[in-house]
Amino acid sequence: MDDRERLTIDEVRDLATRVLSRHGLAPDHAEACADVMTIGEGDGGGAHGIFRLLMCVSTIRTGKVALDVEPVVRDVAPGLVKVDAGGAFAPLAFRRGLPTLAAKARAVGIAAMAVTNCRHFAALFPEVEAIAREGLVGFAFTPSHAWVAPAGGSKPLFGTNPIAFGWPRPGKDPFVFDMATSAAARGEIELCRREGRPAPSGWGIDAEGKATTDAAAIMEGAMLPFGGHKGSALALMVELIAGPLVGDLTSAESIAVDDGAGAAPLGGELLLAIDPARMLGDAVSSHLARGEAVLDAVVSQGARLPSLRRYAARRRAEREGVLVPRKLLDDVRALLD
Amino acid sequence: MDDRERLTIDEVRDLATRVLSRHGLAPDHAEACADVMTIGEGDGGGAHGIFRLLMCVSTIRTGKVALDVEPVVRDVAPGLVKVDAGGAFAPLAFRRGLPTLAAKARAVGIAAMAVTNCRHFAALFPEVEAIAREGLVGFAFTPSHAWVAPAGGSKPLFGTNPIAFGWPRPGKDPFVFDMATSAAARGEIELCRREGRPAPSGWGIDAEGKATTDAAAIMEGAMLPFGGHKGSALALMVELIAGPLVGDLTSAESIAVDDGAGAAPLGGELLLAIDPARMLGDAVSSHLARGEAVLDAVVSQGARLPSLRRYAARRRAEREGVLVPRKLLDDVRALLD
Repeated sequence: MDDRERLTIDEVRDLATRVLSRHGLAPDHAEACADVMTIGEGDGGGAHGIFRLLMCVSTIRTGKVALDVEPVVRDVAPGLVKVDAGGAFAPLAFRRGLPTLAAKARAVGIAAMAVTNCRHFAALFPEVEAIAREGLVGFAFTPSHAWVAPAGGSKPLFGTNPIAFGWPRPGKDPFVFDMATSAAARGEIELCRREGRPAPSGWGIDAEGKATTDAAAIMEGAMLPFGGHKGSALALMVELIAGPLVGDLTSAESIAVDDGAGAAPLGGELLLAIDPARMLGDAVSSHLARGEAVLDAVVSQGARLPSLRRYAARRRAEREGVLVPRKLLDDVRALLD
Repeated sequence: MDDRERLTIDEVRDLATRVLSRHGLAPDHAEACADVMTIGEGDGGGAHGIFRLLMCVSTIRTGKVALDVEPVVRDVAPGLVKVDAGGAFAPLAFRRGLPTLAAKARAVGIAAMAVTNCRHFAALFPEVEAIAREGLVGFAFTPSHAWVAPAGGSKPLFGTNPIAFGWPRPGKDPFVFDMATSAAARGEIELCRREGRPAPSGWGIDAEGKATTDAAAIMEGAMLPFGGHKGSALALMVELIAGPLVGDLTSAESIAVDDGAGAAPLGGELLLAIDPARMLGDAVSSHLARGEAVLDAVVSQGARLPSLRRYAARRRAEREGVLVPRKLLDDVRALLD
């Protein structure tokens, strides 16, 4: 027996919107958050699909997230825009700021957007994808909660601190990646713990700073960055540019503010956009074609190009809907009561 | 017997300048290149010190580098500056463009500089350090020659594609890192080959795409990115943003143009600068102080903060000079004949 239920993408979006509205999110917030989860569910589900509804509702229940604050977009310099999310979830703030970010990138050649004072529950993938669909090269960075020790260290200091990148491909879906700078997602380690499996080596250390594969010990100790001291340096870079540089919390400050409540991380995000047309003028098409040659050369030698699998899943989901585990659907639908 | 000779930093700079001038570099080029190597020698020597003179002179001897072309700085948009190096070495082009990049970042909040048509022999460290010493947050990216296969692939496609980052620290040397996105530097693998040692596992694959620790087989096959598919995605990002986005060669194109001559990589560089003062206004000092807390928390738990060792070596070199292997000095001085 297949213990999954098929939903159309519209049904997924409708379910997510209703759950979020039921728990008090204002209509624009509910729609923006539901859209992000719907993309995640269609692109392969798992941690970034409607599973996130459980985390969002639990964050709402802590009372630590604003439900109906309209983001405030502020033009601070010809190349800089700031969006104050007012303690609400991030997606609506990003959506409200994107047109200004894109307009500035086109006017100036490059622009940055600082989204501050928001609760993060979603991947950065949809944001860099949206920037790239504007024909711009996009970057996104955000700290989270201090769960990750620096390479060679022993105490949690960095968040999972993702780096996301989007590259416009004429006539095609953008090339996008979104990677934690931690060796694994926290959810993956939590899953090992629940199932009593050891975590792969290199994922974390115990509270004494010793390498361990005991998932419970890692949850009490610290996660590790990917790629040793190089990944650690990148995690530190994200911590600085998406924390102090945008005037918002570091991962250590976010988890201190949380004080054990278990809410989603609070803080900011840094987004960058560069306009290839301003950089390259009339030659932009020929140079983007050279970019296509690089991307094609990845695929033609049998290596995986990030995002291709995701877009294929999305097309399939648009045609056939998605299969959602019945247990998850039951848990989500229970949130409507 | 200590087979090294002590030189003051001024003697190192003088030696490098004379060698480069002797081989035809115009005075400004010789000075800019010598400065970069002198920083490298003082900061710990090795591959980025005056050892690079051997590589520079061998590149000059291929006839593939312009010796006396003055870089052309072009203002292309309020946030974009381009520097055409005219086929010369990169350091003078960077030096000529930096004031415009910094002025634009201060005026607009963020700016990008594309340095194109140059030969790369140096680390990106001195460039992001110089940006950070202007009080700006700096990033630098460049492709090289196609030596590195994508994760899961079998053929060289990416260069060693470094990512460098600089962060201003009030009253202190900037925090800077400069990392190849390859698992190792090409020189490290070459060293294993020369000494008949196996290369550490994960550094490369043979010409059939199989994992190997045979350094000679890696040199004929392909190097690998650091950190698996995440490092590979970052290498691809660098390839795109510092190749096609600046209108210059990819690593595959650079090595094709080289056609076995063994010259330094030809191509471009992308540099970004963000002004924290424009982003944060009056609050800039307090937020930079929060950045200091993050950096201090790395050091206080015993983890290594990139660049601290380098600055310590530099201070020592300024006081005591540097010890240079006599064999290297002999080889370098022979270039004066």
